[in-house]
Parts: sequence; C-alpha cells; structure tokens
Amino acid sequence: MFTRNSYRAVARAARPVAYKPSSITTRLQSTAPKENEQLWKRFVVKPAKYTAFGCGSIVFGISAFIVIIFAHDAMTYKGSHIDRVNVNPLSLAPQTGGKKNLPITNVFMDDEEDPEAKAISQKPHLVIIGNGWGGIGVLKELEHGDYKVTVISPANHTLFTPLLPSAAVGTVEIRSLVEPLRKLVARVRGHYISGAAADIDMSNRLIEVHSKRPDGSVDQFYVPYDKVVIAVGANTASHGVPGLEHCYQLKTVGDVLRIRRSIMQNLEAAALPTTSVEERKRLLSFVICGGGPTGIEMAAEIFDVLNEEVGKYFPKLLRKEISVHVIQSRDHILNTYSEKISEYAEKKFAKDEINVVLNARVSRVEKDKMIYTLKTEKGDKTEHVIPAGFMLWSTGLGMNPFAKRVCEQLPNQFHSKAIIVDSHMRVKGAPSGTVYAIGDNATVDNNLLDALLDLVDDCDKDHDGKVDFEEFELMSQKLRQRFPLAKSHLQKIRKIFQHYDKDQDNVLDLNELASLFSEISSKIVSLPATAQVASQEGKYLGKKLSKLASARERLAGTDLVNQAGDVDDEVVSVPFSYRHLGSLAYIGNSAVFDFGSPELSFAGGLISLYLWRSIYWSEQVSNRTRALVMVDWIKRGIWGRDLSKF
Amino acid sequence: MFTRNSYRAVARAARPVAYKPSSITTRLQSTAPKENEQLWKRFVVKPAKYTAFGCGSIVFGISAFIVIIFAHDAMTYKGSHIDRVNVNPLSLAPQTGGKKNLPITNVFMDDEEDPEAKAISQKPHLVIIGNGWGGIGVLKELEHGDYKVTVISPANHTLFTPLLPSAAVGTVEIRSLVEPLRKLVARVRGHYISGAAADIDMSNRLIEVHSKRPDGSVDQFYVPYDKVVIAVGANTASHGVPGLEHCYQLKTVGDVLRIRRSIMQNLEAAALPTTSVEERKRLLSFVICGGGPTGIEMAAEIFDVLNEEVGKYFPKLLRKEISVHVIQSRDHILNTYSEKISEYAEKKFAKDEINVVLNARVSRVEKDKMIYTLKTEKGDKTEHVIPAGFMLWSTGLGMNPFAKRVCEQLPNQFHSKAIIVDSHMRVKGAPSGTVYAIGDNATVDNNLLDALLDLVDDCDKDHDGKVDFEEFELMSQKLRQRFPLAKSHLQKIRKIFQHYDKDQDNVLDLNELASLFSEISSKIVSLPATAQVASQEGKYLGKKLSKLASARERLAGTDLVNQAGDVDDEVVSVPFSYRHLGSLAYIGNSAVFDFGSPELSFAGGLISLYLWRSIYWSEQVSNRTRALVMVDWIKRGIWGRDLSKF
Repeated sequence: MFTRNSYRAVARAARPVAYKPSSITTRLQSTAPKENEQLWKRFVVKPAKYTAFGCGSIVFGISAFIVIIFAHDAMTYKGSHIDRVNVNPLSLAPQTGGKKNLPITNVFMDDEEDPEAKAISQKPHLVIIGNGWGGIGVLKELEHGDYKVTVISPANHTLFTPLLPSAAVGTVEIRSLVEPLRKLVARVRGHYISGAAADIDMSNRLIEVHSKRPDGSVDQFYVPYDKVVIAVGANTASHGVPGLEHCYQLKTVGDVLRIRRSIMQNLEAAALPTTSVEERKRLLSFVICGGGPTGIEMAAEIFDVLNEEVGKYFPKLLRKEISVHVIQSRDHILNTYSEKISEYAEKKFAKDEINVVLNARVSRVEKDKMIYTLKTEKGDKTEHVIPAGFMLWSTGLGMNPFAKRVCEQLPNQFHSKAIIVDSHMRVKGAPSGTVYAIGDNATVDNNLLDALLDLVDDCDKDHDGKVDFEEFELMSQKLRQRFPLAKSHLQKIRKIFQHYDKDQDNVLDLNELASLFSEISSKIVSLPATAQVASQEGKYLGKKLSKLASARERLAGTDLVNQAGDVDDEVVSVPFSYRHLGSLAYIGNSAVFDFGSPELSFAGGLISLYLWRSIYWSEQVSNRTRALVMVDWIKRGIWGRDLSKF
Repeated sequence: MFTRNSYRAVARAARPVAYKPSSITTRLQSTAPKENEQLWKRFVVKPAKYTAFGCGSIVFGISAFIVIIFAHDAMTYKGSHIDRVNVNPLSLAPQTGGKKNLPITNVFMDDEEDPEAKAISQKPHLVIIGNGWGGIGVLKELEHGDYKVTVISPANHTLFTPLLPSAAVGTVEIRSLVEPLRKLVARVRGHYISGAAADIDMSNRLIEVHSKRPDGSVDQFYVPYDKVVIAVGANTASHGVPGLEHCYQLKTVGDVLRIRRSIMQNLEAAALPTTSVEERKRLLSFVICGGGPTGIEMAAEIFDVLNEEVGKYFPKLLRKEISVHVIQSRDHILNTYSEKISEYAEKKFAKDEINVVLNARVSRVEKDKMIYTLKTEKGDKTEHVIPAGFMLWSTGLGMNPFAKRVCEQLPNQFHSKAIIVDSHMRVKGAPSGTVYAIGDNATVDNNLLDALLDLVDDCDKDHDGKVDFEEFELMSQKLRQRFPLAKSHLQKIRKIFQHYDKDQDNVLDLNELASLFSEISSKIVSLPATAQVASQEGKYLGKKLSKLASARERLAGTDLVNQAGDVDDEVVSVPFSYRHLGSLAYIGNSAVFDFGSPELSFAGGLISLYLWRSIYWSEQVSNRTRALVMVDWIKRGIWGRDLSKF
C-alpha cells in the first residue's frame, strides 16, 4: 500500500499544477480520474479493508477463545494410579471416650497423606459448624496453615440463599447457587464431615456429631476441637400456628426442588380437562405468609413465571385464573425498609394484581387453604379463608436445636432465639477463647448492666465508689468499645451525665449509673438476622482467628499468652462492629434498595433489576457460580424458563 | 495518513537520485533518516495500529454481543393483563361416555382461544402417546395445521437419553437434557396432557388416561382420537432375577437424580471416621449389570468422576479403595459392536482397572451385594459375590403395560416384548389407518408367511397355483417392498428360486414357497431397540402423517379416499426402511464408533471423545439444550464436577 501510494504521489507531483495537501472538499471538486480513484480508495476500499480486518479480528478472537477452551479441556483428562497412601491406623479405628463413650476422631485419614498435610494436622483444631454465610465467612478469611480446619454440616455444599426465590421458579438453576464445601476447605487443606452437631461437651472440648448413612442408620461420634465456631443458623418460627406442615419453606436445596416441582404440578393439574372450576382456581392460588424480603421476592418470582411462561405455553384461561397472595402481619410489606420503599413495592404489587393483605394474623393452615384473621375498625376480629394450591411460610426465626443445647449448658443464656455472645463473638459463659457463635444463631450482648461493676472498678480512679465526669468520659469510651451497638446512644456525654445526675452532685453513684446503663440497654436494637450480618460476623471472626494464630507464635513466652498457650481475643482485635451496606429486594421486573437514608434509597424499573442482579452477582461465593448464574440469566432471556416438572 | 505520505513522497521525488518503488531489502540498506522513519512506520507503527484496531474490534464485538444480550433481555420483561378468554363450556365440564363412563375430552379449554386455534381444533385429532425418541420424531416432522395434535405422557418433558450416564455423575446437568413438551407442541399449536395411557378402546377410538394429581389422587378420563401413535417405550426386563429393587435403573430424570445423590452419599459416608474398612470398600464398590452401551458408559462416567474429582477433594485413601465392576452375560462387552471395538473397550477398561466379568449370570441381588454365577471350564457353576454400595441394572427390555394392553385386544399379537406393526408402522390387527406404534414398544413384522397367500394371488398371473420364475421376480419385488428387512435375503433371486425348487420343475408350488418364506423369516434380524431406530421410525411416521393430511384434501372425492375420508398409507408413502448410521459409546476419555463395516469403525483417545460429543451435540432436540450441554462441558473442563449431594 505504501509503495503504490508513494508512486501515485510521485506521478501527481510531476504534474504541472503545483501540488499541495488538500482538504476533502477541494479534492471532491476535482474531476481527474486519478483523483476519483483516490476517493474510491479512501471511501470504499479502505473502510472495506478495515471492516474485513475488524471482522477477521472478531472471528480470530472467538476462534482463539475456543481453541484455548479445548486445549485446556484436553489437559483435564488424565489417568491416575495411586500406589500407596500413608494413613494413621488411629484414623481408621478411632479410640472411644467422652461422656457417651463414642469414637473420638483425633486423627483424620488424610492427616498424613503428605508432609504438608501432616504439618497442618499438628496445628490447633478449628471446627466450624454450619455451611451458611457465617461459617463460609470464617472459612474464606483463614490463611492456609493457620489451623487444622474442619467443617461440619449435613449438606456438603454452601448455598447462595438470596437467590433461592429465583431458583424456586427456575429463573436460575439451583446448581448455580451451590458450591461444594470440599472445594472451599481444600484451600486451607481442611476437612469436611457430613453430619449434624447434636451436642457439645465444653469441658472436654468435644462436639457430638450425628451422621446419617445412605442406609438411613445414624453414626454418632465426637470431634475434638481447640476452637469451635457455631454457625448453624436458625429454624423457622411457627408462632404456634397449627398446620404448618402443609406449607413450604425456603431455606434448603430440598425446599427449592420441592417448590419448583409443586408449581409445575399445580399448573399441569390445572390444565387437565377433568379439573373443576373451583379446583383450578385453588391450584392456581399461591399464598405467601410473610411480607419480608424472602416472601416478597418469592411472590414476585412466582408472578413472573406465571406471567411470562404460563400465558405462552398453557391455555390462556390458566393465566387469567391465577392469583398470588401475600399475608403480612404488619402495616406494610418490607416493613424493615423505609416507608417510601414499602409504598413503592405495594403499588407495584397492586399493578401486578398481587393481592397484599396487611395486618393479618394467620390462625391456622389446612391442606388446601389458609385461614387468617383481620381486625375490623371496631376492634372485632373477622376470619377469612384463602383456598390455596401452594403455601409458603417465610416469617420469623426460631432457635436451632443445637444452639438450644449450647444455651442449656451455660448460665446467663436466657435469650429465646439465639446464643448470647460478647462483641468479640465469644459465647457468653463458655471457656474463654474456645467457643464462638455467629450468624442467625447468635445475638450480640446488649445488656450493659453486666459490665457495670467491672467498669466502675476500672474507671473509679479515686476509689470513692462514684464516678465524676472525667471518670465517666473514660467509662463511656470503654463502653463504646465493649458494646459497639451502644455507640449511637453514647454521643453527647455531658448531656447524659447531667441527665442521670439526679441529685446534681456532679458525680454518678451506683444507682444513677445502673439506671443509665439499663436505659441505654433497652434502647439498643439487636442486629437483624440477615445474610449480611452473618457474613460480616464470619469475616470478622475469620480475620481475628487468623490474627490469633500468628500472634500465638509471635507472642509465645510473653505474659500476653496464658498457660494453655492462648492469646486473648482483645489483644489482637477490636470488637465486631456492623456496617449496614443496605437492603435490597426484587419486586417483579424492578427492585428496591434501602441504603439506610431516604436520600440514598430508591426503587425503580428494569435498571434496578439489573443493579439488583449485579449486586447479587458480585456477592457470589465463587467465580464458578458467578459464571453459572450469568448463563442462567442469559438463558432465561433467550429461551425463558424450563417448565419441566421433576 | 494519505496526505502526509504523499507529502513525504513528493519530497523524496525531489531528491536528485531517481526514485523507484523499492523492495524491503534495498530500503533496509538505506541509512537516510527519512527512510529510517519509514521503516519505523512500516514495522512498528503500522503493526501496532493494526493490533490496536484488531483488539479494538474484538472488544467491540464482545461489547456489542453483551449489549445485544441486554437489549434482548430487557425486551422480555413485560406486564400482561388478559381480559377475556373464549372457552367452550364443554371443555370445562366434559360429557361422560365410553365403556367405563368416564369424561370424554372432545374439546380442550384452549381450542377456541383465537381463530387459528379454532381452525386447528377442527382437524383430525392425532394423539401421540409417549415423550421419547419416537413420539418426538413424529411431532417434529408434523406441519403446522395438519392435525389437532395431543401428546400424552406422565413427564412433561422429553429427555436426551444418550447423555443420561453423563448426567448421573454431573458431567452434564440433567436440566440441559430436557426440553418441555409444551414448547415442542406449541409449534403446531398442539396440546399436552399430563398422564399415562392406561387402556385403549379401538372401536370407539378412545384412549383411557390416568393422571396423578398433586394430592396423589388419580383422575381417569378418555381422550378421543382419529389417529394414535403409541410410543411409550419399554420397561427394563428383570430376567426373573430377585432383589432388583436394590438396583438403580437409568431411564428417567428421577433415576438420574437418585444415582447422582447416591454416588455422593456413598463418598461422604466412606469419608466418615466411623466407617469400617470393609464398609468403606463396599460403599466404594460400583457394580453395573449389563455390558451394553448404557452400562459401559455408566461405568466409564463413574470411573471418570472418581478419578478426576475424588482424588482431588476426598482423602486419597478413598480413591485407592474404589472399584468399578461390569457384569456381562456375553463373551464381550459391547457385544453388538464389532469385535475390534469390544476388544479395544476391554483393554481400555483393564488399563483403568475397571473389573469386567464376562459370561456371568446374575442370580440374585441383595441390599448390599450382588451374587452371580460363572461356568467353570468343566461346566460346573460357581457362585461369586461382590459387595456393592451402588448397583445399576441396565440389561434387556420388557414390555410396557400399555403396550401389553394393546396386544391383549388384538389377534396375531403374540410377541413377548413389543407390539407387532407392519412396515408402515401400523399396528397389526387394529382398524386400518388409526393405530400406529413406533420405537421400543414396536417391532416390525418379519413373518413373510402371513403374506404368502396374498402374494400368490397377486403374482400368479396364469392362476395355476404355482409361481414360475417370471412371476417369482414380481413376487420378490413385492416382498422387498413389503418387508424391507428381508431385502438382504432376497438378492440372488435366480439362485434362491433354484434352491427352493426341490422337484426342479421350474415352478415353485405352495409348499416350496412356504418353506422359502419361513426360512427367510427366520433369518431376518429385528431392528434393535435403540434411540436411532425409534427416532427414524418417528420421523418416517411424522412425514407420512403430514403427507396423509395433505393427500386427504388433495384426493378428496377420488376413489383413493375411503368412505371415512381416509387415504391409505400406501398411497402416499413407501414402507419404513432403517438406515444404520453407526453406533458409538463413551469409554472413559475415549470413545468407540461402529459404522457398520470394519474399515469405517474405529476407537481412540481424546479426539474420539470430542467426536462422540459433537455427534451427540448435533442430535440435541433444541438449540437451548445444545447451548446448555456445551456450557456444561466447558464448566467441567474449567471447574470440574459439582460434588454437592442433593
């Protein structure tokens, strides 16, 4: 190209007319054939060439991508033959002991596979009970080699719970939301035990595990621990409503599979020619109890699948006779969100003809209907009945049996739904530095009174049994540190001091302090039982445990290490403090966001949907699930949801 | 670029040295700074520019793709409100009738939704029973508007059966192998009924359907038909072996889910510290009965997952103690393939340490073991026991109950495993042109004797009750047409004629013909019960039914149409003739292909694996499943299989 261009330029230069670089306009006026050829080259040949090159590059890029995929794939197939495996005989026939004389698994069968495994098996044993946000949060923050790590959980996967409503209707596939625990523990060369923690023996540091075998029998054994993290989550609360066995729940993979099958079965049954009009309406009536994020998203997803797929592939009559109901006990749905957002969601649901019943109390559930009561303006109660083909119970949390068992063994554990922990996530009353609890099964202590005498001892410098303002400043500093949840109530210290100094003697005596502490305690709102809290607590604890592991070696021999070789949590870490990153919810082709303040919160259409997705996408536990969820969303866009029932 | 280039060329032309277009070499020798700049431009700037442009194009291509995906996705979200749906009241309250006085569904609730639906509902009613290769083959070949089409099947999806072994271990996901029937029938605006055909009333042309409701009760009703295609497939044969309830089968989605769960449960139980050595070996012993393609592929897939994933994420001891066994009753595995291929497969399995037991007969199955007998060289039988944690039964086919019910109602239906059809796939003995059967539940009649008298009547031109050679030529032509399976046995007619002309009087009398017909009959090998046969039969029938639909209108009023308005199949179509396209099987990171002749058949490593995949890939029922299966394969390559048990 260069050569020919230059040649032509030479020829042009030889022409009698003086040549100068010209603009497009002047050359467009020229009529010489040579100039025409230039124009042709410039506006046709060259763009065509670039286009061809561009397309070629795209094709090349795609081809290269495919070749790389194939090349990588080809490398993943290999035979393998294992000759000898080093196994400690004790791991195959564990000694028995403990209160119930069960096998104690001191050694695992892969503890001596190689030098690295052996080295790690000598480390303190950290046992994580649970596969949810808390447990995984801990696991992900640990460094390789910090501990001998063991995860105990009946399910051998972790589950991305926020997308369960999507999975229950097939917007995403459930396999896209699970990550095998064995892959996650492999990073720290940890162990996984398939079983449920049934009991704990804190004096001997043993977890009693019950594991169901394929034939249905149950193995019982002890797993010893140096440190244990309890992250088993919570159960659903029944609120004493009878008949809940007719309702679905939405917590596990099994729940998702059952719900998806049930929806499809109902649709197929509704389409049968022998189904009566009333029965069809009942089969197509979807009732959701609970107006929190899970219930709302489930209602929205069910509405989506019915709206987008049923109209297309089932008789239109079905689409017409479908009804979705949300039964909420409060004034608003999404009542933990700002009012603006609740109202937006209610309007959106009204537009979609989703029936929202507010201030309703479910009195009982029967096989094919839900009965609830409403208060009339006069204060009388009226009973209402919704025939239902599908009922979901997603309201309130109850205590997990294992967490209950832990509480029973400890004094001062009087909370009805969770284990009380201090702000370092240490279980209150348990041997120091050995038992932690996080997530839905834990609640951070907010009873300041317990710390009163300690603090007076610490801060009452002149030992007069009273606290003057200077001493109170120190005290409130310590209080804020120890009870991060109380921070917002300890802002204007001077004012507080004056307010509680009833006799205005410029000092607070014990009685005045007690009334101050107890009033602040009553104002503290516990952290909500959300994935976000559990995840932050898990990450906090994981980081701290990692710090403790290195401090243990670093501080060995100093007086910061106690006789058992343990470092106190408070040496390496500040108390846990929750940072609310906002709440969000999908409400049917749109989403709402509550970022804590009215200015930041918003609700909207498709763009919100994509924002909602991108937040959940970035929160995925692995790149694998990230890719799979993306594929699922694209799949839904192109082909819709899979209507197969199984 | 043009301007500056030309300018420089002008300057160059002004130099005293005569300028001519030069090659790279001459210019490389030049040392003038201008020339250096040219070289710089040519070898650095220009390539850089092209590279940048190329990369830009790739980025642009990908971005454009993503934008298109998003734009398309955004268009798929829309609200919908349905005002009025036209419904024939008869569809909501069907009249009862038939032998059992059940509801008869003459009209469906979507028959009068719009003018198009109404027009189609007036067409002859074609009922397809079954969701397998045969039924889907028919469905896919029908033209829109040929018939009012109804598909009856308990499962509301079709399933790509050849990849079931892959799905059972998670190499592909089961959701990638299913396509909803409602999407397939939507193309011809057909109907789907969730239920199983239980009986047929051929005189009143009614199918009795039993449909299970979500609450477990069973609805019974009649579906009337003008034409019915029976494609329900076959059941697994028990061969009278007791204890088969302890074995898994591999036919449905449910089977796949159960097998996958079972494999993972066994692995997790084997990894428990309380599992004894014997119990662990038993849990890790996978026994497959049947050395056909399904059994072999299942063994290979199980070996793959154990080899590729278990070694990585479970204690190495497990990998070492795993055993896979194939119990085959014949001399070789894959005994329907060429010997070369069987031997290759056996060698590959020996290398992978898969235990192949040949000439073995399973005598009984117990909860945790399989007992089989082998004949010693002396002819004595010895009994052997394999402890097993997983047992698959994949050998032989038995008759489906509905197919049995059809046979019971007809004379001449004496086959033990399938419905006998003529070469037009019409059920023998059923009212002409109304009942067809295809796939595993059908076998093409190969009893030439039935046709003897007809053919003699037709071909005996001189009515002497005997057939001379000229007449025999015509007869064999008709025979070949009517019994395509007999083709290969009717090649050298002169020789056959002479061979059976025992008295050498140059004519064949009835006795001689009978012995000829019966000997050929005995030589005919029935078509195997494979997906390929079922699919070809289905497509053949679908095309023919389509032709019949148009012939019906075209030939209306001519004597080719009978009183009922039906056209005979033989007017529009030749008999079904099977074209074997080859058999293939995956045997663990390699595959074998049998294309009918030894030269074409081959077996090999990774390349074969990709060929095997590409054949199955192209056979997928929809682009959706095609894309999903591809994603699954890539996923396995990058992240391995999902080990979650549920």
